[in-house]
Amino acid sequence: MKLKRLLSTSIQEIRNFNNIPSDSRIFSLIQPTGKIHLGNYLGAVKNWKTLSNLSHLENKCIFGVADLHAITIPKLATELKEYRYQAIASLLSSGLDDSQCILYFQSSVPEHTELNWYLTCITSMGQLNRMTQWKSKAKQGENSTITDDKVLESTKAGLLCYPILQIADVLIYKSTHVPVGDDQSQHLELCRDVAERFNSIYQTDYFPIPKTILTSNKKILSLKNPNKKMSKSDPNQNSCVYITDSPEAIKMKIKKATTDSIQGQIYFDPEERPGVSNLINIVAGIKDLSIDETVNEMSHLKDHKQLKDYVSEIIIEEFTPMRLKYNEFMNNKDYLTSIVNKGKEHAKEIAEKNIKEIRTKIGMD
Amino acid sequence: MKLKRLLSTSIQEIRNFNNIPSDSRIFSLIQPTGKIHLGNYLGAVKNWKTLSNLSHLENKCIFGVADLHAITIPKLATELKEYRYQAIASLLSSGLDDSQCILYFQSSVPEHTELNWYLTCITSMGQLNRMTQWKSKAKQGENSTITDDKVLESTKAGLLCYPILQIADVLIYKSTHVPVGDDQSQHLELCRDVAERFNSIYQTDYFPIPKTILTSNKKILSLKNPNKKMSKSDPNQNSCVYITDSPEAIKMKIKKATTDSIQGQIYFDPEERPGVSNLINIVAGIKDLSIDETVNEMSHLKDHKQLKDYVSEIIIEEFTPMRLKYNEFMNNKDYLTSIVNKGKEHAKEIAEKNIKEIRTKIGMD
Repeated sequence: MKLKRLLSTSIQEIRNFNNIPSDSRIFSLIQPTGKIHLGNYLGAVKNWKTLSNLSHLENKCIFGVADLHAITIPKLATELKEYRYQAIASLLSSGLDDSQCILYFQSSVPEHTELNWYLTCITSMGQLNRMTQWKSKAKQGENSTITDDKVLESTKAGLLCYPILQIADVLIYKSTHVPVGDDQSQHLELCRDVAERFNSIYQTDYFPIPKTILTSNKKILSLKNPNKKMSKSDPNQNSCVYITDSPEAIKMKIKKATTDSIQGQIYFDPEERPGVSNLINIVAGIKDLSIDETVNEMSHLKDHKQLKDYVSEIIIEEFTPMRLKYNEFMNNKDYLTSIVNKGKEHAKEIAEKNIKEIRTKIGMD
Repeated sequence: MKLKRLLSTSIQEIRNFNNIPSDSRIFSLIQPTGKIHLGNYLGAVKNWKTLSNLSHLENKCIFGVADLHAITIPKLATELKEYRYQAIASLLSSGLDDSQCILYFQSSVPEHTELNWYLTCITSMGQLNRMTQWKSKAKQGENSTITDDKVLESTKAGLLCYPILQIADVLIYKSTHVPVGDDQSQHLELCRDVAERFNSIYQTDYFPIPKTILTSNKKILSLKNPNKKMSKSDPNQNSCVYITDSPEAIKMKIKKATTDSIQGQIYFDPEERPGVSNLINIVAGIKDLSIDETVNEMSHLKDHKQLKDYVSEIIIEEFTPMRLKYNEFMNNKDYLTSIVNKGKEHAKEIAEKNIKEIRTKIGMD
C-alpha cells in the first residue's frame, strides 16, 4: 500500500515549473496562524510567487487563507479575524500580486463546504482513519484504530474530516496542480483517490486527478533545535524568524542559532551539521540557488560567526521590505478587505459554475 | 448519561400543538425515498399539515426534502432526481400548502453545508460514535467502538457525520421545535448539546435549544410482520400501503394483512394482537381520534373481515384524492419546480441572514 502510494505520487510529481501546462489550475491554501515565518515563506509562499510570476501560469493560480481549517482548533472570533488579516498581509508583502493570481479567504466561497459534504458521502472511514495527521492529532499510536473512548470524547470530528475539506478545496476549482509539502502528500494521495471515486461513481471524467508540484522543497528547521521544523508554536521563540522581525531581532536570533563545534570550512551535511546545514538551506532558499552553488558562494566564510553574519544579512535584506509592506498593509485593513473581496468574486465565479455542474452530475437539480 | 438524556428529552417535549408559542420556528425534513407510504404519512407528513394549518403557527413552519442526506447511500443521478420530485409531490398531495409553510429542497440552500462544517469542528467524535444509527448502519455491535477495519473500509464518512448535518439543518433556521419520531430522539439530543456548545464557545445565546414536538406518535407497522415498522424497503411489498396505491391494491393489501386468531370483539392490545392493533392505530391516525374513541367507533365490527373492510374504506377515502393529486403533480414537474424554487427563496432569505450572523460570531467576516 505504502509502496503503491509512493510510486503513484512519484509518477504524478512535477519537478520543473516550466513543465506545468498552460491550461492548468494551480491551487494552494495557507493556514492563518498569524504572521508568517521563514519556514512558511521558503516552504510555500515564495514558491507561490514564483509560480504566479511565470507568464504561462499567470492567472492560473488560486492561493488563499484556510480559515475554515483554522477552526478545527477552537479560536476566539477576534483572534481568528486578526489571523486572517495577518495571513493576507503576509501573502501580499511576500510579493504575491493579486493581478497575477486569485488571493482570497476560503470561507468566503461556501462552495468549498457544499462540495465537502458531497465528498464526505464517498470517502471511506478506513482511509480517514489511516491519515497520519489524524493519528498524531488524536494522540493515537501509529497502528491503533479509534479505540480510546477518552480521546474520542475530547476529539472533534473536524480533526478526522478536514482532509475531505482539503480535497473539496482543491477539486471545487478543478485544480490540476497543488504545490504542497511532504507532510501533505498523504492527503493529496487521498484527494486523487476521491476524485477518481467521484468520476467512477458518476461515470464522468469531470475532476482532473491533481498532480503534486514538488517545490524547491525547503523544509526550514528550528534555529534552536534543528531536529524539528521551524514552528510558530515553538515555546522558544528564538527558534523562529518572522517576516516582521526587526533587523536587530533577526541578528540576535541567528547569532543564538544552534550550530556545532566543527571548526574551519563551512559545508553542507544535514546529518553531522544540522544547524549549519539549516542556515545554508535558508540562504539557498532566499537566493534561489542549489546547495552546491550556495556553499560555493560562501567559500570565503571562515567560521561560525562569519557564517551567521552573512546569513543575517541575507535574511534582513529579504525581509526588510516585506516587514515595511506588512506593517503598511496591517494599518490599512480596508485595503486588505478590498483585495480579498476581489479575490472572492473571481474564485466564486469559478466555484459557482463548477458546483452547478457537480450538482447536475449528482442529480441535485 | 442515558438517564440524563431521557430526562432532558422529556422536559423539553411539547405534547400539545397549542402550547407551541407563536414566535416559534418549526422545522423538519423527509428523506426522498420515493412515493410515501402510510407510515410516512401518519408518522410525519400528516402532523406537518396539522402544524402548518394552525393559525398561530402559519408561516412558522419549514418542511423540506432531505436530498443531502439521501446521498449517504449512493444513488444514480436520475434516480435521485426522480425521488426528489416524488417527495415534493407527496408532500403537496398530502395537503401541505406552500402558502402556509416553506417547502423546499435542502440542497438548494447551501448554508446547510456551510454550518455543517462549523459544527463539525465542535462536535465530539465520542458522541458521534455512540449514535445508535451509526452503530447499526456501520454494522457494529451495540458496545463496540470503531475497530473493525473491513467495516471501516467500506463505510463512508457520511454515515458517521450525517447527524451533524441534521443539526445544521435545524439550527441554520434557528428552529425552536422539531417534530421527530422516536428513532431521531438521540440525534435531537445531540443537536441540543451542540447548540449549547456553540453558544458556550462563542459566549452567546444565539442558537435556541430546540424542543421535540411529540406528534401523535403513530408508529405504523408492517402489515405482514407487525413486529417491525412499515418500510418501503420491505421485500414483501404487501406489507406497505403507498399513497399512490389504487383502491383495489389497498383492499388487497389490507385483506392479506397479518392479524390473529382471536374471535369476536375487536380490541386494542399491541402485545397480544399486534396486527389488529396496528389496523386500529391506522384508523385512529387517519381520523385523528384516540385509540379509545377509535375502538368505540368500531364497536359494530364483528370479525376480522369486517374490520379489514372498514380499514380499507378509511384508507381509500383518505388516499384517493391524494393519489389523484400526486399523479397530477408528477405530470407537471414545472409546477413542482416552481413550488420548490419559491420555497428556496424564502428559506435562503432566513438562512443567509443567519449564516452571516454565525460567521460574525466565529470571526469569519
